[in-house]
Amino acid sequence: MISSTSNSQVKHVVNLLNKAKYRRENKLFVVEGVKMVLEAPWERVEKIYISQEFFLRHKSGLDRIEWKSPRVEVVSDAVFKQMSDTKTPQGILATVKMKESSVDEIVESDRAFVVVCEEIQDPGNMGTILRTGEGAGVTGIIMSKNTVDIYHPKTIRSTMGSVYRVPFFVAENLQDTICQMKLLGVKVYAAHLNGNNSYAKEDYSGKCAFLIGNEGNGLKDDTAALSDCLIRIPMEGSVESLNAAVSSAVLMYEVNRQRRL
Amino acid sequence: MISSTSNSQVKHVVNLLNKAKYRRENKLFVVEGVKMVLEAPWERVEKIYISQEFFLRHKSGLDRIEWKSPRVEVVSDAVFKQMSDTKTPQGILATVKMKESSVDEIVESDRAFVVVCEEIQDPGNMGTILRTGEGAGVTGIIMSKNTVDIYHPKTIRSTMGSVYRVPFFVAENLQDTICQMKLLGVKVYAAHLNGNNSYAKEDYSGKCAFLIGNEGNGLKDDTAALSDCLIRIPMEGSVESLNAAVSSAVLMYEVNRQRRL
Repeated sequence: MISSTSNSQVKHVVNLLNKAKYRRENKLFVVEGVKMVLEAPWERVEKIYISQEFFLRHKSGLDRIEWKSPRVEVVSDAVFKQMSDTKTPQGILATVKMKESSVDEIVESDRAFVVVCEEIQDPGNMGTILRTGEGAGVTGIIMSKNTVDIYHPKTIRSTMGSVYRVPFFVAENLQDTICQMKLLGVKVYAAHLNGNNSYAKEDYSGKCAFLIGNEGNGLKDDTAALSDCLIRIPMEGSVESLNAAVSSAVLMYEVNRQRRL
Repeated sequence: MISSTSNSQVKHVVNLLNKAKYRRENKLFVVEGVKMVLEAPWERVEKIYISQEFFLRHKSGLDRIEWKSPRVEVVSDAVFKQMSDTKTPQGILATVKMKESSVDEIVESDRAFVVVCEEIQDPGNMGTILRTGEGAGVTGIIMSKNTVDIYHPKTIRSTMGSVYRVPFFVAENLQDTICQMKLLGVKVYAAHLNGNNSYAKEDYSGKCAFLIGNEGNGLKDDTAALSDCLIRIPMEGSVESLNAAVSSAVLMYEVNRQRRL
């Protein structure tokens, strides 16, 4: 059992939690809680850490974890608290290997359906977009490099497991990536307050992608200019804009609705 | 200028921020930031507090605030920090009179369109539901008594001003309120994972209400049982549920889409 916070594995986990650069260098991220650990693809799990209290309480219950695997480490409750990002830790976390898809993989299907996020800053919004995306049936999510890190503990948490299942790609240069998608036959829609076309009047049966801008400022002008069509979500009352995760959800579920008809 | 944190007005604001009971007793709540203060209906504003720094920087710019009104108080920057709920305060806040609507008012229109929240716990979700509701054109929002306080500073913030404009009602007994709506001719839909009917196949042209349950547990069985129809939002992949604010948004914008046709 690990009982010292100066243990190198403990430092490793704490660095993975707190430092995006360290995560990228090690190509690993941290997931916490029973659901997130059990849903992780086993071949991508580097290590599972459980608190002593969790071990004693659950060792007979959680069949899916091989307690005697060299990949499982028990740590003292005090040390676990140090390794956890949550206020009331469940007592289980794992380090998991990153996996990214390519743009080609994301748009190859005839039913390619992509959400493209430019500079989304809130981890909760980004995680929710991934989760809703899986539900609506996207073939992938593309994020600009300066979008909030998808491996940030808060983003991971709000994906509710979708981070393992929804293909995604972080674009070094988002505008180049948008042009690449267009060359691959994807029709690109920009969600825009100046859009003349109501989102619900377009036909999304073919390959399509939706550009979603930053929470405060929306899409950059030159990003929106790359789209084939500016679409707008109609708003009553005095609402100036919708939350980014809400706008994406409304668009994604309109695609889902049309494709089910 | 108020420069002591033991000033009774300062204590009043701090209590309004932190204590739901004190808010209810005084029928007042606190809004922060330029946008939220300027959008507040002037007749409902009890008092505006601005930091000295804000006053010096903005006094020529914000015409809409009558600086010499007895309703405006300047406070020292240190005191303002104490009165603020945010990490980097903008330097302006107001205490505003509560206003609630009745169920009758919310459903009287032929196009009554209501979201009913049972035990929503996250202030961000609740605020987002109000904001999206205004955009989608609801005639009101109804909340169970044990839903997160709509006047919680975080809820207020995420409404982005909709709290002033969307009629709402907090139900002492939610199930009674649902029955009351049904007697007034409202068709009640429950968003439910066991729903047999896809939400997009229903006709929402008449008076309608949508029951949305708690983030972790969904609707209570006996609340869902009061509905006329259980509807489901289809989900691909392995998604078990959608975020509460996202589910409501998808339903509300389907009503909006149908009613615009």
